[in-house]
Amino acid sequence: MEKLSIVKIGGNIIENEIALHTFLQLFSSIEGKKILVHGGGKRATEFAVKLGLAPKIISGRRLTDAQSLEVITMVYGGLVNKNIVAKLQALKINAIGLSGADANSIRAKKRPITPIDFGFVGDVKEVSSNAIDALIQASFTPVFCAITHDGNGQLLNTNADTIASQISISMSKSYATVLYYCFELNGVLRNFNDKTSVIQHLNTTRYQGLLKAGIIADGMLPKLENCFDALKNGVAKVHIGNTEMLTKENDNFTTITL
Amino acid sequence: MEKLSIVKIGGNIIENEIALHTFLQLFSSIEGKKILVHGGGKRATEFAVKLGLAPKIISGRRLTDAQSLEVITMVYGGLVNKNIVAKLQALKINAIGLSGADANSIRAKKRPITPIDFGFVGDVKEVSSNAIDALIQASFTPVFCAITHDGNGQLLNTNADTIASQISISMSKSYATVLYYCFELNGVLRNFNDKTSVIQHLNTTRYQGLLKAGIIADGMLPKLENCFDALKNGVAKVHIGNTEMLTKENDNFTTITL
Repeated sequence: MEKLSIVKIGGNIIENEIALHTFLQLFSSIEGKKILVHGGGKRATEFAVKLGLAPKIISGRRLTDAQSLEVITMVYGGLVNKNIVAKLQALKINAIGLSGADANSIRAKKRPITPIDFGFVGDVKEVSSNAIDALIQASFTPVFCAITHDGNGQLLNTNADTIASQISISMSKSYATVLYYCFELNGVLRNFNDKTSVIQHLNTTRYQGLLKAGIIADGMLPKLENCFDALKNGVAKVHIGNTEMLTKENDNFTTITL
Repeated sequence: MEKLSIVKIGGNIIENEIALHTFLQLFSSIEGKKILVHGGGKRATEFAVKLGLAPKIISGRRLTDAQSLEVITMVYGGLVNKNIVAKLQALKINAIGLSGADANSIRAKKRPITPIDFGFVGDVKEVSSNAIDALIQASFTPVFCAITHDGNGQLLNTNADTIASQISISMSKSYATVLYYCFELNGVLRNFNDKTSVIQHLNTTRYQGLLKAGIIADGMLPKLENCFDALKNGVAKVHIGNTEMLTKENDNFTTITL
């Protein structure tokens, strides 16, 4: 099967003009077909504050109310997405920016109130691999923001890590999908205080061992659960590290297989 | 040749939730292949005011400075475009929202300073009919906001009427293109004070006569120049009127041919 790379970047890259430019150069140099998924970082919060919207926190969780969803749609779907697309065009990558509503590519279901009401937050229900593949076959490079829709006209705020893994799973029917999670660390660390202590290879058995030893915890836990979920559902390989893992010279990042 | 309808809507429809819903139902009922082009209306100005940005007016013209462009990108490219796409999906139209940067569909050139500096305003240089046709052939319905790019990473604010006519001209190589300009009036009026005095058919000869008689003036003049420019460059037919011209029962609007 042909290789398809799905790369997810987070706020630390988007918020930094130079880091974004460096990343986009690396992304554009990835050989073969590729998809970019971006989060939004703190810019949505910044704009919400400028617009005088107070963040609504209920039971310690941020609520995506109608006004927050407007800001997210403006910042992620408009400002961040269109600027990334324009910058990729300048790098000769024929990018096409998408929310999950565009091309009906990602349908989601509004998260039920149990008992926390998250507001306009959506859990991915169905990724249309046909729609995404039609775009890829037409030589476009899809650039997804973390917004989905419910099919009834409602946009929904959705976790970008999940969007990346769900797209990867769906596309693995037709491609050998490789998922890259770019974040601020070099990879999964053996010792959190030593940024160089990267675990280069991780599989289910080693993961269970590290879990028992208490080495994997906090924010890394849901990220890795997402990775193993992707691998169990057809994704060939997952890489975690900073953007430099996209250079061919660097092998100091984490590669995860089943 | 197969028919392709290009429909342009302005602020009066976008700013009114009910008018927009009614329009989208009419748009979705247009038979055959279609493209939607939307302006942004006053929402960008509203958000600019909320963000505390003072409009920059130089020599009586509004300047699109870097901050204004950010707001335009957020409101037109994000908020308005994604909501229209989600609403069309609910009406079973497989819409895909685009700026001119997406799919490299519309390249523009930053307007030169002569002597007025308009800021980040772009004049259309090239529409990629291949890219747009690839999307149409893949059964998507393109929804364009009035943003283009210069190919070097810079987004540009561009007139939505011009985008609609330039897309129509470009697509007329492969399709019998019919351009619809939806606005607040019933059509081109014989007497501006009588909203029912619609001139139902207009061609070059009649247009020259109306110009001499001083019946066509002000805002209608550039709109009609745009229409005749489109017709001279391959567009089959142009219709001007309110959204009800899209219903089959209504024939009280203006149809323009060469």
